[in-house]
Amino acid sequence: MRTKVKAHTNIALIKYWGKRDERLNLPAVGSISLTLDALWTETEIEFNVRFKTDRLILNGQPATEKELRRTSKFLDLLRQRAGLSSPALISSKNNFPPAAGFGSSASGFAALTVAAARALKLELSGRELSIFARQGSGSAARSIFGGFVEMHAGRLADGSDAFAEPIVPPDYWDVRLLIGVTSQVAKKVSSTAGMNLSKETSPYYQAWINAQPVDLKTMRRAIEQRDFEQIGQLAEHSCLKMHALALSSNPGILYWNGVTVEAMHSVRDLRASGTQAYFTIDAGPQIKALCLPEDEPKVRAMLESIPGIQQVISCAPGPAPQILEVE
Amino acid sequence: MRTKVKAHTNIALIKYWGKRDERLNLPAVGSISLTLDALWTETEIEFNVRFKTDRLILNGQPATEKELRRTSKFLDLLRQRAGLSSPALISSKNNFPPAAGFGSSASGFAALTVAAARALKLELSGRELSIFARQGSGSAARSIFGGFVEMHAGRLADGSDAFAEPIVPPDYWDVRLLIGVTSQVAKKVSSTAGMNLSKETSPYYQAWINAQPVDLKTMRRAIEQRDFEQIGQLAEHSCLKMHALALSSNPGILYWNGVTVEAMHSVRDLRASGTQAYFTIDAGPQIKALCLPEDEPKVRAMLESIPGIQQVISCAPGPAPQILEVE
Repeated sequence: MRTKVKAHTNIALIKYWGKRDERLNLPAVGSISLTLDALWTETEIEFNVRFKTDRLILNGQPATEKELRRTSKFLDLLRQRAGLSSPALISSKNNFPPAAGFGSSASGFAALTVAAARALKLELSGRELSIFARQGSGSAARSIFGGFVEMHAGRLADGSDAFAEPIVPPDYWDVRLLIGVTSQVAKKVSSTAGMNLSKETSPYYQAWINAQPVDLKTMRRAIEQRDFEQIGQLAEHSCLKMHALALSSNPGILYWNGVTVEAMHSVRDLRASGTQAYFTIDAGPQIKALCLPEDEPKVRAMLESIPGIQQVISCAPGPAPQILEVE
Repeated sequence: MRTKVKAHTNIALIKYWGKRDERLNLPAVGSISLTLDALWTETEIEFNVRFKTDRLILNGQPATEKELRRTSKFLDLLRQRAGLSSPALISSKNNFPPAAGFGSSASGFAALTVAAARALKLELSGRELSIFARQGSGSAARSIFGGFVEMHAGRLADGSDAFAEPIVPPDYWDVRLLIGVTSQVAKKVSSTAGMNLSKETSPYYQAWINAQPVDLKTMRRAIEQRDFEQIGQLAEHSCLKMHALALSSNPGILYWNGVTVEAMHSVRDLRASGTQAYFTIDAGPQIKALCLPEDEPKVRAMLESIPGIQQVISCAPGPAPQILEVE
């Protein structure tokens, strides 16, 4: 009962912010993402009745109590479904720094879901896997699929309609996302804490929720029509609306640093000069520039020329989680 | 019929963003400001029937056609009231760079209103002066008074209830506003253009309007109670809500540069270490830190230590416009 799985992170083009149910981790809004090939988590899991407790190794180090508790609680959902109670040994590593707005929880919980389900011999559909993954981390549900993916907010109290599904096949269209790393420091306010604060204190929260369905519909159609300009403009607008929501919370949450903001201006300047590049930013300080493959060298050169950008990572659309080993 | 007037700019602590009537320049929300002693405009005006047309000299240079038109149109309101049609020669100078988020139009139109009214021998109350000044520039209405000032949005279609008035006497309380200059470049999107775009495209616009009355009431009470912590927190929240509104417009408006954002974090870091400092930012890239007089050296040192801050200007509460010369 040992499995090793590799899952990729994803970037939301229509952003997710806000929970309609915190216990079941049900999103208040749907979202649309692109799974990324270059950033991934590899997770190995073994269930064994002879283990005394769950143990979690993250990037070669024992995890904190809090991380272990979150993981055990999540695994309980899958153990319950399988009718098993064996403790697990989990070893997980990322190829990118954690908690810096890279969505390590997305690839992490996607990998853990697929690995645990397989190790427990559960036969689950993609939809079911995404529903499990969502309970570990909202954005993980989208990493159950490759390419352009939509997460549905759903309406049901039990969350059975809050699942992700692919919009198009994983190899539908080659676009590029270039990540400009501006900081490796963990963010001060976690996404969950930020979302809760926005829900409780922002006067803009309800307006954010209300505007989302139109954005989702427009983005879906733009992807189906390969309308890159529409995709880019809408992604930038959704990103700015999400950060505006965070800023309008009380006290306001500012995920950007100076380099993030200079890079936002640089992306727009490059666009004004005729290159189709658009930015998006998660709950962290990294800048992400969306472009077409033929413009990648120009966009990379622009990002590399910004003082304070430490590294630029090029991503193409990534696949669904892959099972690497089964024992 | 020649007069020279000095008027001071002001900083909004509860921000103004959005117009309910563009022709009469009626604000969609009230605002609360502090008039600043260190930044001012001196305006000299002469009405003379022998002049052929209005002429406007700004900082020693002939004004642009657009600036002249705006000024002439504004003076027509006062000429109409006085029953006179003499053209005017206006010479105006600021002690700070224009169009960089310093509110040069606030002190400029306040000085022009008071100077023109006096030259035209109009006997106007402060309220009437503020109603005239508002038609030149929304923020100018507040610069008709010294110290802490409230501008009322009003409800009447003719704008007769959209006026400013002092909340407390001008010398009520000594606080400090330190301006960190991050750029001398004129902003890309004017306040008026930004406000119109927000009204037309931001999903958050109505929520911004709806939340304002509570902020105004809370700020008024905090000023009356000299509750500096409350004033500072609320000023920061109002500033972030205004910029969030600009960012959520489509396309999103980003008035900050990298230094602005680094300074925002630095103000918060200083506060976390025990010094009461709060930021506010107008529609431009300058950072403004509000503090008590005894903390001014610490706050100044903090701002001066941020790479990219070109200059720090200390302001105390400023007076109402002063008539310097009458002929």
